[in-house]
Amino acid sequence: MLKQAGSLKPLYSAFPRFYCSSTCGDTVANVSHNVSAKQQLYITDPISPGSIFFLPNGTKVFNKLVNFMKLQQQHKFGFQEVMSPLIYRKSLWERSGHWENYKEDMFRVEGQDIEKEEYGLKPMNCPGHCIIFKSSSRSYNELPLRYSDFSPLHRNEASGALSGLTRVRKFHQDDGHIFCTPDQVESEIKSSLELVDLCYTRIFRLGLNGTATTYSLRLSTKPENHIGSPEVWDKAESVLRNILESSGKKWSVSEGDGAFYGPKIDVILTDHRGKAHQVATIQLDFNLPERFDLKFKDKDNNYKRPIMIHRAVFGSLERFMAMLIDSNNGKWPFWLSPHQCMIIPLNTKDEGMVQKAKEITSILRGENTPVDIPVKLNSLHFNVDVDDRAEPAGYRIKDAIMKNYSYLIMVGAKEIESGKYAIRSRESRELSHLSIDQIMNKFRDLEENYL
Amino acid sequence: MLKQAGSLKPLYSAFPRFYCSSTCGDTVANVSHNVSAKQQLYITDPISPGSIFFLPNGTKVFNKLVNFMKLQQQHKFGFQEVMSPLIYRKSLWERSGHWENYKEDMFRVEGQDIEKEEYGLKPMNCPGHCIIFKSSSRSYNELPLRYSDFSPLHRNEASGALSGLTRVRKFHQDDGHIFCTPDQVESEIKSSLELVDLCYTRIFRLGLNGTATTYSLRLSTKPENHIGSPEVWDKAESVLRNILESSGKKWSVSEGDGAFYGPKIDVILTDHRGKAHQVATIQLDFNLPERFDLKFKDKDNNYKRPIMIHRAVFGSLERFMAMLIDSNNGKWPFWLSPHQCMIIPLNTKDEGMVQKAKEITSILRGENTPVDIPVKLNSLHFNVDVDDRAEPAGYRIKDAIMKNYSYLIMVGAKEIESGKYAIRSRESRELSHLSIDQIMNKFRDLEENYL
Repeated sequence: MLKQAGSLKPLYSAFPRFYCSSTCGDTVANVSHNVSAKQQLYITDPISPGSIFFLPNGTKVFNKLVNFMKLQQQHKFGFQEVMSPLIYRKSLWERSGHWENYKEDMFRVEGQDIEKEEYGLKPMNCPGHCIIFKSSSRSYNELPLRYSDFSPLHRNEASGALSGLTRVRKFHQDDGHIFCTPDQVESEIKSSLELVDLCYTRIFRLGLNGTATTYSLRLSTKPENHIGSPEVWDKAESVLRNILESSGKKWSVSEGDGAFYGPKIDVILTDHRGKAHQVATIQLDFNLPERFDLKFKDKDNNYKRPIMIHRAVFGSLERFMAMLIDSNNGKWPFWLSPHQCMIIPLNTKDEGMVQKAKEITSILRGENTPVDIPVKLNSLHFNVDVDDRAEPAGYRIKDAIMKNYSYLIMVGAKEIESGKYAIRSRESRELSHLSIDQIMNKFRDLEENYL
Repeated sequence: MLKQAGSLKPLYSAFPRFYCSSTCGDTVANVSHNVSAKQQLYITDPISPGSIFFLPNGTKVFNKLVNFMKLQQQHKFGFQEVMSPLIYRKSLWERSGHWENYKEDMFRVEGQDIEKEEYGLKPMNCPGHCIIFKSSSRSYNELPLRYSDFSPLHRNEASGALSGLTRVRKFHQDDGHIFCTPDQVESEIKSSLELVDLCYTRIFRLGLNGTATTYSLRLSTKPENHIGSPEVWDKAESVLRNILESSGKKWSVSEGDGAFYGPKIDVILTDHRGKAHQVATIQLDFNLPERFDLKFKDKDNNYKRPIMIHRAVFGSLERFMAMLIDSNNGKWPFWLSPHQCMIIPLNTKDEGMVQKAKEITSILRGENTPVDIPVKLNSLHFNVDVDDRAEPAGYRIKDAIMKNYSYLIMVGAKEIESGKYAIRSRESRELSHLSIDQIMNKFRDLEENYL
């Protein structure tokens, strides 16, 4: 349950698809639309307005982003992935407050049989995670309990506002909810900010031409309408202020702009056009634990109320993809690229040479397992194609660069004889000569280090 | 669009959750329910009847199954993964025939704003894949075009029939659709059967105590009500008969039991109780390509109609998980186990020993990357826990075996000194002494070979 400050839908509406002027959103949408058309990433269709059809190439990028985030969340930040239902009876949404406050943005679902039960299609994962928390009696030593979930979410954006990946009705978040004690709030927020920093400083370079991302933090404080005692708010806000102070990052305060259920920190990213976007958000919530009567048994054997933290780092995966495309203009880093390498047999009239090029393609794609042996779990599979069209090698090389292949491998007579293949990157004409094993290792290193 | 032969919902209703007497379904449901309670795999809640809440352990198993299937489909059988929308305007379902024939089993969706558009929540992926096929002009040299999709699907099963993982309203299929020419049908069906065989003969041992799965094939032929000319049917059925004949597998014919849109082959598995279940299915479809006016430009420059093949190997992932649990009774093979290894420091009063046990745990979990370095893509992460409770080692060893950990590693003074740790499997008391590297390699081998 994530609030969008200063928007048209102030309550419960999280992750504005773009937190900047609509013009800027349109630009990003246009760039991602053009790149998508060229690279066959996704399509949209009026048969399902605002829902993306991810084509094979777009699905590859999407899955890589999800993989990256799952690995960090689960093996560095103590999250556990869960999968929760998409439709819930109306009574859940009444309990969570969505039916009252968010109804217009939700899709209503009903069976068409005699029973005709009424459901809401989820716009957020939080109530589902509360159900999981509540499904067994919890002890203090289980806390902090951190759930992550990549479920598809639906929000009924006005049809006129829909645009490419940036304003959608179906989307996915790298969503996470932390159930913790008041004492744990500080370290949980700190660690959420560490993940934000890892993500935006070390991995994704959203500045111009792949330069570092610049971002700042914004604290939103107690609004006029709020729940919870002034003491709890003061304490929470002072914890957040201290964290921001010691973060070393630029930060600002948006007074009175917090959610009614708690203060929050938003991450504001500046893109290569100098425009600001809200991406990650970290929100304290004193409300849902109350509404769902969540409790844990503390050391003193008394039942106490946990605090809930809503946080997402990418925010909407779809929107994040649009931002990536806008900043790289289709020149994906190797690990994310649906076009990692093109193999070019220099003389396509030479059958043996074409055969060799295909063999190398199959090895790099990890598709060379014998017929009756399954493809191994955890095996490597690079996005490699072969261009054996009857065109001059120079033409095919240019074409592969135009299509933004990260690497090109040239297969000629000399290469076959020596077992060392000429390889160059998209950016540089400089050739290296490497064996297939060396190329595999090079690609593996690039991929595993998110380069 | 997959038909279930001989069921109450003959048209369009695919993948019966269980294709045997309800008693048998109940037994399987009960076993999976009991194991789930013990291993914390999933829960259900009346707030979303028939939708599974996968807990962290269940999510791990689910993701492994999906990973296995994606790897085989994409890197051995030429599939490309796509992600398609979940809600589509009513007009799509009218065009596909679902609104007429399958309406009662579908959930209706509508916006709650002024526009109040009417949608159907998808029970199958096929119409969405037709939209993708149609989104660009297709040439013969793109065929066969094979799309896979793991989207959540919803079917409004009667509430009284809902039960655990076996009769659900929300489920996932390892769904695939092949668009091909009539000439390609034979090799596509053959290759679908190869994947079935790889899956059920080599990987999943669903017989008693992990013995091999036995399955047979069943051809369902032209029903009274059908579309398409007798010649097309005869040709298609004779192709399927020839394939079945040369398959070397036991097969039977169910005359007149095909779908109205084409003949099909079902895979009937016999479980360890001797009960039959329909799992995989491979169905020819002459209908949807007609309804969606799908075409490709052939070599002769004429536009022609492709044939569509619907196929799934697991069928419903949820139901397949229930069958796995029923056959293994919680004793997962290593690669699928949410409990792969328990580390037991022999003397929990020895802080150094406990520390060493935790260090090994962190290495095997792949959680030992330095703070500011991201967890690598494609890195290995085993499901390893440490039991450092102040209980006798013998008690903790027994407890870990009871909890079905696949391996146990004992950490004692001798082990720490030599750097070789005592390791045993769940089944055998025999100890090996291995270094951490050797253990990593052992686990990697087990996992990558689906053992």
